Amino acid sequence: MTITDVLESYREDLKLVETEIQSSLDSRAVLIKQVANYLLLGGGKRIRPLLLMVSANLCGNPGPDAVRMAAMVEFIHTASLLHDDVVDGADVRRGRASANSLWGNQATVLVGDYLYSKALHDSVQLENHRVLDSISAATKTMSEGEVLQLLRTGDPDITEDEYLEVIEAKTAALISSACRIGAVLGNVTPDKEEALAGYGMDVGYAFQLLDDTLDYTASQDKLGKVLGKDLGEGKLTLPLIHLVKKSGPDESARVKKIITDQSENASDLDYILELMGKYHSIEYAVGRATSHVERAKARLSVFPESRHKDALYAVADYVIERDM
Amino acid sequence: MTITDVLESYREDLKLVETEIQSSLDSRAVLIKQVANYLLLGGGKRIRPLLLMVSANLCGNPGPDAVRMAAMVEFIHTASLLHDDVVDGADVRRGRASANSLWGNQATVLVGDYLYSKALHDSVQLENHRVLDSISAATKTMSEGEVLQLLRTGDPDITEDEYLEVIEAKTAALISSACRIGAVLGNVTPDKEEALAGYGMDVGYAFQLLDDTLDYTASQDKLGKVLGKDLGEGKLTLPLIHLVKKSGPDESARVKKIITDQSENASDLDYILELMGKYHSIEYAVGRATSHVERAKARLSVFPESRHKDALYAVADYVIERDM
Repeated sequence: MTITDVLESYREDLKLVETEIQSSLDSRAVLIKQVANYLLLGGGKRIRPLLLMVSANLCGNPGPDAVRMAAMVEFIHTASLLHDDVVDGADVRRGRASANSLWGNQATVLVGDYLYSKALHDSVQLENHRVLDSISAATKTMSEGEVLQLLRTGDPDITEDEYLEVIEAKTAALISSACRIGAVLGNVTPDKEEALAGYGMDVGYAFQLLDDTLDYTASQDKLGKVLGKDLGEGKLTLPLIHLVKKSGPDESARVKKIITDQSENASDLDYILELMGKYHSIEYAVGRATSHVERAKARLSVFPESRHKDALYAVADYVIERDM
Repeated sequence: MTITDVLESYREDLKLVETEIQSSLDSRAVLIKQVANYLLLGGGKRIRPLLLMVSANLCGNPGPDAVRMAAMVEFIHTASLLHDDVVDGADVRRGRASANSLWGNQATVLVGDYLYSKALHDSVQLENHRVLDSISAATKTMSEGEVLQLLRTGDPDITEDEYLEVIEAKTAALISSACRIGAVLGNVTPDKEEALAGYGMDVGYAFQLLDDTLDYTASQDKLGKVLGKDLGEGKLTLPLIHLVKKSGPDESARVKKIITDQSENASDLDYILELMGKYHSIEYAVGRATSHVERAKARLSVFPESRHKDALYAVADYVIERDM
């Protein structure tokens, strides 16, 4: 099964999610719909809603509550992207102008707030404590992860463990929650719920690790973003952390200077890319991502074979095979 | 009973709320505590927690759930102040440097996100659907109100109704929710719950109306803010809306020009203050606030006389009598 097969197989579920996303944006403030739709319809991969729907199918309850929560998880993700745009001060996201460059920081912050609070208010209507506990905890953890990332920006001495703590909080927690909610709605046994939550956590790690790698390897046409963007923003991700640790003293000193000076130019980036080749930093990060994918799949052993389980395998593989 | 008597009378309750606020800020990200505490301990009036505790007392259940929710309502209010600082680009709040001028927009946005999500996650732990429904709806309405306000910034033709719609959403909804939550926790009859929610809504209107008036009348020493700050930010509040409507054609044209040019200086402000004196615009706005206070009190007729009811009367009076 490939990701294309998966998307085809859950086409009806995903259509319901799209309808839910559209019909949920009914605010009297037109600007909210404009800004939110710009991101919501801007070519996101819908990985989180997909994982929630597949998990709910695997656990036997892909009903209206699952569809609702799949839409809400995407709202929360979108809200975080809006606030990321403000925090990063980026001009471009997914190859298009960023929300803040079009509508300004003010509208971008406030529409993000609206999407967060709308998602939590709509989730409350399910009257399912465990679903609410999971989604609200994930939202809190995400914002904590963003603060941790901000604190560590520009710090060339960030350790691999500190970096992993950030990506667990800012990315993996919400993906894990999406999978857990599928399990909670299906009322499965605790071991199955934990298996799915763990699967989501590992897929989340792999997703972010690969994303961070693409920042140094992707061709700009496909990714629609500038190579070395994280470096330019002082965000240290695994390939760079690996490089600082593994390179020789002179090399490491120069790399650290590039990081702390934040005046990185094309030749600095070339130098870093060359060193990453020499020390196999990209391969190291991809290897870590691959381990998480393997672990994610292994966690599903509590479930009998089924097409839904196969779909989860395929999504896990896709996360590290994608080149955009 | 005066506000001083009320604060004395509920001193123990308010102390529990302070302890709850402090002990809830336990994030591993130290920056969160720094930024949040700067605002949380920055001399806020704690009107919302006070109203929640008095309402809970009036309804017979001022227990740990009320204390928890009083703290959470203050968290949500604080989060909104943080995001307001970013949206307004203000350098000063309550006479001190604003959070964004000290920590930058990035940290201010993210710590605001943390406080919002923390408050909702902690609220989920009560497992009380109606409390959660109220607080999450209020949070959503607040963010919608902020967007509406942004959309109407600099528009000299905003109507009184449009302005009232904004302040209901951005201010009154959360104060109303604080009072409603006190009622829900006390398990009172629907008419009593609606009476308290309505009381909070009217107090909220009065609070914001008076706040907006103070922007044109307060002495800077007491308020710790610059006179005419709203005008400078293009925020049209009731005194100015009244003035645009009531002044003569030439006067009105000049006022509108000051608003739309956004290049307001001291003599522009003097001109507007003089016209507001001529047309009694401040008195008009204070009169509207006073009507809301009267209505707020009248709504409490479903409750028998008690010291808690007297306290709610006193808070309502305080809202329009304060000069800061």
